[in-house]
Amino acid sequence: MARKPKETPLVEVFAQNVRRLRMERGLSQEALAELAGVHRTYIGMLERCEKNVTIYNIERLAAALGVAPPVLLTSR
Amino acid sequence: MARKPKETPLVEVFAQNVRRLRMERGLSQEALAELAGVHRTYIGMLERCEKNVTIYNIERLAAALGVAPPVLLTSR
Repeated sequence: MARKPKETPLVEVFAQNVRRLRMERGLSQEALAELAGVHRTYIGMLERCEKNVTIYNIERLAAALGVAPPVLLTSR
Repeated sequence: MARKPKETPLVEVFAQNVRRLRMERGLSQEALAELAGVHRTYIGMLERCEKNVTIYNIERLAAALGVAPPVLLTSR
């Protein structure tokens, strides 16, 4: 059985980066969801590590946050 | 309708990086699949941009190739 997203360190790194960058830009979860073209509850789930995000959504979130995709996978 | 993986530039960047790093290490697609714990046909599909890879598999492939995950999303 595939591991749950939570058990993947990279999911945690990604969640923390999205949250930090979103808050630095003063964006609500709903506002970021709209910018990225994802459902408004998606960002909350992602930040709680409940999503095994795909490359397609990594790209959309990076564009919405104005960073290069690798930034979202870089641990701080 | 969600875009097909092929229409996502980041899928192409990821595919090229996996292929380049795999060949630099003299690994067959099957050998990399075994190292990463994915099905032996998965690497071929991924390198042909037929897969919308998840963070979970980005992490496993990065570990199998011995690079940090952001390297696989960095365009050269």
